[in-house]
Amino acid sequence: MKIAIINGPNLNLLGTREKDIYGEESFGAIIDRLSTLFPEFEIIYHQSNIEGEIINILHSSALKCNGIVLNAAGYTHTSVSIADAVKAVEVPVVEVHISNILAREEFRHNSLISPGCAGSIFGFGTEGYRLALEYFRNNNK
Amino acid sequence: MKIAIINGPNLNLLGTREKDIYGEESFGAIIDRLSTLFPEFEIIYHQSNIEGEIINILHSSALKCNGIVLNAAGYTHTSVSIADAVKAVEVPVVEVHISNILAREEFRHNSLISPGCAGSIFGFGTEGYRLALEYFRNNNK
Amino acid sequence: MKIAIINGPNLNLLGTREKDIYGEESFGAIIDRLSTLFPEFEIIYHQSNIEGEIINILHSSALKCNGIVLNAAGYTHTSVSIADAVKAVEVPVVEVHISNILAREEFRHNSLISPGCAGSIFGFGTEGYRLALEYFRNNNK
Amino acid sequence: MKIAIINGPNLNLLGTREKDIYGEESFGAIIDRLSTLFPEFEIIYHQSNIEGEIINILHSSALKCNGIVLNAAGYTHTSVSIADAVKAVEVPVVEVHISNILAREEFRHNSLISPGCAGSIFGFGTEGYRLALEYFRNNNK
Amino acid sequence: MKIAIINGPNLNLLGTREKDIYGEESFGAIIDRLSTLFPEFEIIYHQSNIEGEIINILHSSALKCNGIVLNAAGYTHTSVSIADAVKAVEVPVVEVHISNILAREEFRHNSLISPGCAGSIFGFGTEGYRLALEYFRNNNK
Amino acid sequence: MKIAIINGPNLNLLGTREKDIYGEESFGAIIDRLSTLFPEFEIIYHQSNIEGEIINILHSSALKCNGIVLNAAGYTHTSVSIADAVKAVEVPVVEVHISNILAREEFRHNSLISPGCAGSIFGFGTEGYRLALEYFRNNNK
Amino acid sequence: MKIAIINGPNLNLLGTREKDIYGEESFGAIIDRLSTLFPEFEIIYHQSNIEGEIINILHSSALKCNGIVLNAAGYTHTSVSIADAVKAVEVPVVEVHISNILAREEFRHNSLISPGCAGSIFGFGTEGYRLALEYFRNNNK
Amino acid sequence: MKIAIINGPNLNLLGTREKDIYGEESFGAIIDRLSTLFPEFEIIYHQSNIEGEIINILHSSALKCNGIVLNAAGYTHTSVSIADAVKAVEVPVVEVHISNILAREEFRHNSLISPGCAGSIFGFGTEGYRLALEYFRNNNK
Amino acid sequence: MKIAIINGPNLNLLGTREKDIYGEESFGAIIDRLSTLFPEFEIIYHQSNIEGEIINILHSSALKCNGIVLNAAGYTHTSVSIADAVKAVEVPVVEVHISNILAREEFRHNSLISPGCAGSIFGFGTEGYRLALEYFRNNNK
Amino acid sequence: MKIAIINGPNLNLLGTREKDIYGEESFGAIIDRLSTLFPEFEIIYHQSNIEGEIINILHSSALKCNGIVLNAAGYTHTSVSIADAVKAVEVPVVEVHISNILAREEFRHNSLISPGCAGSIFGFGTEGYRLALEYFRNNNK
Amino acid sequence: MKIAIINGPNLNLLGTREKDIYGEESFGAIIDRLSTLFPEFEIIYHQSNIEGEIINILHSSALKCNGIVLNAAGYTHTSVSIADAVKAVEVPVVEVHISNILAREEFRHNSLISPGCAGSIFGFGTEGYRLALEYFRNNNK
Amino acid sequence: MKIAIINGPNLNLLGTREKDIYGEESFGAIIDRLSTLFPEFEIIYHQSNIEGEIINILHSSALKCNGIVLNAAGYTHTSVSIADAVKAVEVPVVEVHISNILAREEFRHNSLISPGCAGSIFGFGTEGYRLALEYFRNNNK
Repeated sequence: MKIAIINGPNLNLLGTREKDIYGEESFGAIIDRLSTLFPEFEIIYHQSNIEGEIINILHSSALKCNGIVLNAAGYTHTSVSIADAVKAVEVPVVEVHISNILAREEFRHNSLISPGCAGSIFGFGTEGYRLALEYFRNNNK
Repeated sequence: MKIAIINGPNLNLLGTREKDIYGEESFGAIIDRLSTLFPEFEIIYHQSNIEGEIINILHSSALKCNGIVLNAAGYTHTSVSIADAVKAVEVPVVEVHISNILAREEFRHNSLISPGCAGSIFGFGTEGYRLALEYFRNNNK
Repeated sequence: MKIAIINGPNLNLLGTREKDIYGEESFGAIIDRLSTLFPEFEIIYHQSNIEGEIINILHSSALKCNGIVLNAAGYTHTSVSIADAVKAVEVPVVEVHISNILAREEFRHNSLISPGCAGSIFGFGTEGYRLALEYFRNNNK
Repeated sequence: MKIAIINGPNLNLLGTREKDIYGEESFGAIIDRLSTLFPEFEIIYHQSNIEGEIINILHSSALKCNGIVLNAAGYTHTSVSIADAVKAVEVPVVEVHISNILAREEFRHNSLISPGCAGSIFGFGTEGYRLALEYFRNNNK
Repeated sequence: MKIAIINGPNLNLLGTREKDIYGEESFGAIIDRLSTLFPEFEIIYHQSNIEGEIINILHSSALKCNGIVLNAAGYTHTSVSIADAVKAVEVPVVEVHISNILAREEFRHNSLISPGCAGSIFGFGTEGYRLALEYFRNNNK
Repeated sequence: MKIAIINGPNLNLLGTREKDIYGEESFGAIIDRLSTLFPEFEIIYHQSNIEGEIINILHSSALKCNGIVLNAAGYTHTSVSIADAVKAVEVPVVEVHISNILAREEFRHNSLISPGCAGSIFGFGTEGYRLALEYFRNNNK
Repeated sequence: MKIAIINGPNLNLLGTREKDIYGEESFGAIIDRLSTLFPEFEIIYHQSNIEGEIINILHSSALKCNGIVLNAAGYTHTSVSIADAVKAVEVPVVEVHISNILAREEFRHNSLISPGCAGSIFGFGTEGYRLALEYFRNNNK
Repeated sequence: MKIAIINGPNLNLLGTREKDIYGEESFGAIIDRLSTLFPEFEIIYHQSNIEGEIINILHSSALKCNGIVLNAAGYTHTSVSIADAVKAVEVPVVEVHISNILAREEFRHNSLISPGCAGSIFGFGTEGYRLALEYFRNNNK
Repeated sequence: MKIAIINGPNLNLLGTREKDIYGEESFGAIIDRLSTLFPEFEIIYHQSNIEGEIINILHSSALKCNGIVLNAAGYTHTSVSIADAVKAVEVPVVEVHISNILAREEFRHNSLISPGCAGSIFGFGTEGYRLALEYFRNNNK
Repeated sequence: MKIAIINGPNLNLLGTREKDIYGEESFGAIIDRLSTLFPEFEIIYHQSNIEGEIINILHSSALKCNGIVLNAAGYTHTSVSIADAVKAVEVPVVEVHISNILAREEFRHNSLISPGCAGSIFGFGTEGYRLALEYFRNNNK
Repeated sequence: MKIAIINGPNLNLLGTREKDIYGEESFGAIIDRLSTLFPEFEIIYHQSNIEGEIINILHSSALKCNGIVLNAAGYTHTSVSIADAVKAVEVPVVEVHISNILAREEFRHNSLISPGCAGSIFGFGTEGYRLALEYFRNNNK
Repeated sequence: MKIAIINGPNLNLLGTREKDIYGEESFGAIIDRLSTLFPEFEIIYHQSNIEGEIINILHSSALKCNGIVLNAAGYTHTSVSIADAVKAVEVPVVEVHISNILAREEFRHNSLISPGCAGSIFGFGTEGYRLALEYFRNNNK
């Protein structure tokens, strides 16, 4: 079973910037840890700072994966187009945010992407990715 | 280790009403299933339709539990007082909603409670309670 | 045929406060008058100032009555939870307000409860309760 | 005793359009039924699609009727002028809507007309007209 | 002369939570201090986390007290029903908040309760209760 | 020199309704008084309750008059179409309101019509019509 | 095949007013040109400044035409009633505006009428009517 | 009979700035012209750029004049304090604006001052001052 | 110990205007009464209608007083600059309003000044000044 | 004559996703059909999911084409930058949307792009592209 | 060449208050430093806490200076009158703010004054004044 | 010392489009002029129309430059992601806009990017870039 993890803008800096918010672990280390915890999944990792590339990755991942974990970061709040892509693909998408968007600045309180997702996980730090995979462990198609 | 699960208004009807949204399983059955999955936890279940009783339960659970799972249902969007209680207690609280509140009516898009929580899980159906306990499995104090 | 009449907060004061808005008749007298006018109905009267108790009464009335007349008073404008309860119960609920909420302060102009009701009657004074029962006279299930 | 029933725009189509919302009965049939139910009333029926004509009818009905039942349909939400007319006339006006305007699209949630009315009845289908006449049966001047 | 002091949700935790905002003194100690400062008053203390119980207490206090000091805490901003109760009772009610609600989060900037009160005192810490009693010292009926 | 005075909805009731707001004088008497005060003008009076007829009258008056005095009453606040007509006609239009719309209900605080007018006169009672004609006395084309 | 073209308020002035926005051609000339271009259609032209008459024309056109082209002009933005009529009739309605309403004043940016239409054409000048007929050429029922 | 004309900020520049909006005549010339036209009035002219001085002038003028003409210019839209002063003084105040504030930028569309005035005159250029004096000619106390 | 009392615009009229709202006592009489009640304080009284002078007085009072009582009247709701001054000075400032601003017109419901104050007292009439001094009696630095 | 057709995000999925909204035809088939219908045009087709690439394509198409048909899909509602590009290029741009954006979710009701376009065509399905080319057939520069 | 630097309310406290935001340097020292850096300019410094005096200074500076640097501080966000004065004067005005107003409280995010200015410089601390003079070095009239 | 200048969407057209707003100079010429004026800086120029590429450039520039000048053009108002990138990088970023965004259309009045910047310079035309470099001349790390 294949699961795509797609990270959006600035998440390539994870572990190096604003560590009090996002933690000190780089995403490479996180992927390694998750691969060990979920040996039954092949985890395919993508990161892009470009809105449209995230759409491209969603389209292509939908053809070859059984589930998608999406952290669209700053595009979460403004991208009608990523939201349309999430609705268009047929594999389940789980939304993850490292911080709790409902507890930060007002302009981060909405998610255009949530309505098309199987579920949303906010604020557990990078533990959110593990919980997303826990969901797929029991609910894969 | 003790975990309190606190359900808010109308969730006593779970499994009997609006089954297309909330599923067909009653909460008794869910608790049984969770107890089997998480034998290391003593799960203490509460349900109340009364806003202030939920505050009372939060206060008392905080004294004897290691974690709280809270689904405040309709009070999520309007109760400054439950939100104050969540911030006041010192054990971690995980917010769960069966449906994805960001994908329903406009008046359900906010959560006053999220800012005080360790994290929020929306929209996975009753699987959300399992994911909340997964969080506590790795992150108990 | 059983009909529940459920009155919300402060309506226990009916006949004693703000008489220019709510009239001089106490609710006991109103129930007596209605029982005479509608001998075919067994009228079961409830009043509570507590939001969650109104939800409890809605749940239990739904199991034993053929119709419910609900005046949620101040909770009308803010209680997502009572609105959820109204939608969850399967007997028809008729909403009554003594004054016309659309003609009072701005914050009383909405009703969260209306969408789940069979119909709404505003502003006829306590005559509204009679009209609600008139509705059930012709439309009982 | 004379009662005017005034229907606003598109209600001439009643019984022919959007039957799931408005029912299958034409208004002619409804008037017949009401005349039988309320033999003590002379019911005078008007329908117009023109906002200003409804104002004209309100002005003239006020001079020769004891009560007015008004369903201003789409003008309910936008017509300051009909609202002014309702306030200007001295016979009591009862507002009726076939559907519950508070349960439909956002732009139908207000009624400019309610503040000038004796009371408002929403959402009982064409039963609302009967309830309006029930009101006048007991409360005629 | 009898004065009721009514505290709303979470104020039972006073002196134990968020001490930088609310201070370190428990309310028992405060009542003792106030009783010494105002020997001419019999102070009757109530605390409840339940919105409707606060309404009940307001109703009953109004029958046996000469003045009421009310800190409705989180219900201040949302409870139309407590506001209605304050308007309905005939003894003067003084509103107190420990912190200055106009200086905290946006959603605490309004008070539904103020319009029915004799006056409002915000932000002096627990000194606000003393000032409220100072008011009654000179202005009792 | 010809001046059209055009009155909108409900102004046919002038002198008979809500006399505390609109005064006791009928418009016939006002026209007589104005004709005496301004013998150099031929005053042509129109009143209609119908929005589109007011547009028709504006179109035709523009072809034969040197100035127009318009009190669009309730249509002032909502009629994009009358506002378009005012902008389309080439004779100067003076807007008059008997009461001061900026001092009444919130929904009367705007005027869609003002931007197309030579000027606006609010709140002087029926004296406003005299002032409008004073304007034309010195400023006719 | 019969097509009704219905023009709303002030469009009788076309070719005479604000020529920089609306062009110099009168609507009579436009109809002639369209009749030549679309010989297979019988074009029936209506213009009214009265909101309710436009509703009347929509009702009657729906009984005898195969398609309707509607430019509701200023009523586009405010008329719930015309919007209701468009939804009620069963022949397809194409919305046309000469100028692009989304590029003009803020209050013209919405169209209540669009949701009931087969499609909308904004801003091509009077070419918009030709495009509307092009639509019916290929899509008549 | 004494009439005060009070001009607010920047009106000292009249005749020198933005002549397309405000005209070319200085206010000295305007006062001269008005004195000739209204020989029965003693016109007392004030201009200040300072909000509080305008309040001072309103207070003192009220003690010695029979009427006040006020153009509060930019303070019109923001000054609660001048509005309070206008309400506090007992002589009638007529509001004048040279341009039509309802036809300019959005932030000029309201007037806090109107509710306390005898009437408002907008947009006739400096003719507005003449019309204001015309009002006092017939309506002096 | 020195306390400055600073009153804002129109409060020089106290005792002469709108007596139903503000009472009949002039501020001179109030100061006399307060001096008798608080012999330990030297009370320094200022009143100005000018926003910037109030800022000047705040700056200078801060250098020579131990506390400030400020009623900024109409500037309360709009003056960012007075609010900045209150935050800049280091002596405690107590905000007083004679009427309860939260119970009056919508535009008086906020206070820009509250966030910088030690506390706020609204609606007790001129008793509010006494309560402010009571605060300083026990809490002087 | 060259015409560029530029499609925005997710339109590469046309014919494969949400067929009830967007139809079953792929865009390749549509281009073929249009080429047959408009043999006088050389149609150059572009699709990109990347906002900035659409800007690049607009810049380059403007140098070599006589007209542009743009369906910016989800970027329509949020992209100030594409809107700036449309205004910057000098060839006429026609906006097309397959569904009627004014009839869908609230956040799709605006178009930032319309103000710079020659005209807009919404809701005719893929027929909208044909109508856009019909426009260029008669209006090419 | 003469340049006026005009500072608004509370800036007389510069160097003494809230030093973490505004820095420790007094404005006297800043002027000295700027005079050394720009020997070709005669710098004329003004500071006032009074809105209307700032208008007076703008009027008089415009007559004798070649450029104006304006920091209107708290009046920036509310003063329509200073904004009008900036537009009225004919010498170029450069707006400076020490802190970045777009990065502070919501109510500081707008500037009414910017539209009339040659340019705006926010957030560089007192360096902003130097940059403003750099602008005039190359761009004096 | 290295300084990156990063220009956003459509700025590649500088000197060719809308010259009345943006001037006639191309950016190549501007860079040449700046290199002459600031010989101590190595200026590295980037332009991209793609939001995510601007993020990439910010990330890489932060590793090799001492300061960044950013004109994000249309993305300024909508891009949470660029704003996050600006906050994440550790070299100082100066925001420049050629026109004054606070003086243009309403939707350009905010800048999401300002809060993370050292300072913002709006409206001086391309002189803004020179002023930004003037800032770095005195304030480099």
